Amino acid sequence: MNRLEALLQAIEPLHAEIVGQANDHLNQLTKPQGSLGKLEDIARQVAGITGEVMPDLSKKAVIVMAGDHGVCEEGISAFPAEVTPQMVLNFLSGGAAVNVLARHAGADVVCVDIGVNADLEHPNLVSCKVRKGTRNMAREAALSLDETVDAILAGVRIVDDLVEKGYRLFATGEMGIGNTTASAAILCALTGLEAGQAVGRGTGIDDATWLHKQSVVTKALNVNGLRAEGGETSAAYGLEVLSKVGGLEIAGLVGVILGAAKHRCPVVVDGFISSTAALVASRLAPLSASYMLASHLSQEQGHAKLLESLGLKAMLQMDMRLGEGTGAVLVFNLIDAAGKIMREMATFDSAGVSRG
Amino acid sequence: MNRLEALLQAIEPLHAEIVGQANDHLNQLTKPQGSLGKLEDIARQVAGITGEVMPDLSKKAVIVMAGDHGVCEEGISAFPAEVTPQMVLNFLSGGAAVNVLARHAGADVVCVDIGVNADLEHPNLVSCKVRKGTRNMAREAALSLDETVDAILAGVRIVDDLVEKGYRLFATGEMGIGNTTASAAILCALTGLEAGQAVGRGTGIDDATWLHKQSVVTKALNVNGLRAEGGETSAAYGLEVLSKVGGLEIAGLVGVILGAAKHRCPVVVDGFISSTAALVASRLAPLSASYMLASHLSQEQGHAKLLESLGLKAMLQMDMRLGEGTGAVLVFNLIDAAGKIMREMATFDSAGVSRG
Repeated sequence: MNRLEALLQAIEPLHAEIVGQANDHLNQLTKPQGSLGKLEDIARQVAGITGEVMPDLSKKAVIVMAGDHGVCEEGISAFPAEVTPQMVLNFLSGGAAVNVLARHAGADVVCVDIGVNADLEHPNLVSCKVRKGTRNMAREAALSLDETVDAILAGVRIVDDLVEKGYRLFATGEMGIGNTTASAAILCALTGLEAGQAVGRGTGIDDATWLHKQSVVTKALNVNGLRAEGGETSAAYGLEVLSKVGGLEIAGLVGVILGAAKHRCPVVVDGFISSTAALVASRLAPLSASYMLASHLSQEQGHAKLLESLGLKAMLQMDMRLGEGTGAVLVFNLIDAAGKIMREMATFDSAGVSRG
Repeated sequence: MNRLEALLQAIEPLHAEIVGQANDHLNQLTKPQGSLGKLEDIARQVAGITGEVMPDLSKKAVIVMAGDHGVCEEGISAFPAEVTPQMVLNFLSGGAAVNVLARHAGADVVCVDIGVNADLEHPNLVSCKVRKGTRNMAREAALSLDETVDAILAGVRIVDDLVEKGYRLFATGEMGIGNTTASAAILCALTGLEAGQAVGRGTGIDDATWLHKQSVVTKALNVNGLRAEGGETSAAYGLEVLSKVGGLEIAGLVGVILGAAKHRCPVVVDGFISSTAALVASRLAPLSASYMLASHLSQEQGHAKLLESLGLKAMLQMDMRLGEGTGAVLVFNLIDAAGKIMREMATFDSAGVSRG
């Protein structure tokens, strides 16, 4: 806990002066002021994060955290739990959607076993398994507080290592059959939404399973004594919610986000599950929110509300609902684009263009 | 007019069978069916357009049409008309936003003078000037019908030449001080919107100029006898509207879109002005709409309505309002990504992943 406390204290605000310098540069470029919208927002934000007007963010990684969920025994997913380890092997072979899209973005996939319910070994797998899946949150707390903190700190350590290797830009990804159920429960507990508004179709369940999934979320909240009226924003409550109805991959991503913020690196938040991790991170360290960039608006019900709670706006509306970090790595391209706008565009003076 | 008729007749529906083949392949890949959303839509659409399940769309260009507007003498823009030729030179020097973003996307910028009110010469400029800017639509028809058809056919010829050179993917871009005013007038005439709903802030005008711009649009519609109640969807009326309140660069882009459809090439439609051209194209040849991909939702008021009229959905929500093709070239990256998903992802069988 002391290490977590120290981490939270180490996260500082953005450099306002560098944001201003980036903005001054943007206003010299041959375009109406502000007309590049969120590309300009990105340029200002990464300047404020890194403390450099034109930072080099070329070395980048999507961290895909994998973990299993005890709540799967309630029958809440369209896919069997064995798909979690199978997909981890697919990530390691480079055949999953996130691998394809990360290669396309010039990013590396860092695949992490933080809680898969299987024995996995592979030279490229980062193993920091806290336990083999969570407990069934519909019956008891999914994780102990110690396990939760261990998973968060594992996520931080992975970012520490990657920063040491020169990585400066991160995205969150995850794999875990059952994790939209855990995420919906976190969303309810932290914002006061009802299960009917927070629970989505996940990998693609029918109406009957969807209603059942809602009842499982409500049960998990009741069993764990989590008030669903929202309004409680303390760090301690955030940690409690994460442990009682969360997941190991979600806790690991909380660590990734906090680690990125500690190192003053931008972190792109993927869809519904990653955004739940981001919401928990922002409760643990409110300043961490300014290091996040939203990526896409997921088709998963509840994601819009999550982004709103975080004060983030999605850049992509692709109707995606796969997770893995697939939406986040697509945004790497937009971040690269914003960097090139800063470095390569002509100014009104250099191009001899009249101002408005 | 006969050449225009022949062009419109040459546009055919997508290959439904190839769409089905692409869909079958997508459903073998290691992801829940449909979970990659619009990336899957793109894959199906480009298959249907090209007739190939995995077409090579690597050679791509954004065609930036430039033209001036007589209506500028009404004082409707935040920038002086001289900016049109200045920005053309900026495009040719590679310093504008569209140049930066096209390089980033691996695309070429084809800069076309179709109606700039200045004498421009440059080895890389495609010159097919129909006239030096439009007439002032608030006093008379902006273009004659012949001038309009000439501009459309010039756009088609440019695509013909690029297809001959191996280009298979296009984006629309434009430059023309005053062209949001012309576009708003087209939008009103074709959909029945009031000027107050169609006129936006353009490059960034204040409230007083915005109200004035609305009154100029209303005046142009009245002077040209264009009924603003919408509902008239004939090709002849589309052409009439384009000539009376349109622009040379808008007409040129109509030609680019129709030319792309004729050659069975996908065409990415940029923001407000480009979408006006797309709406006119869809009135001239309704089948052309299935060759279009929307890119971003512009901040310019009226764009959402335009996309709705076209049955298109934006992929990017970047709050951009620059034009030039900047939003469209960002979508090239998503089209590349969709192609790689088709070519590179593992199948359930090849990766040994259980199905849902």
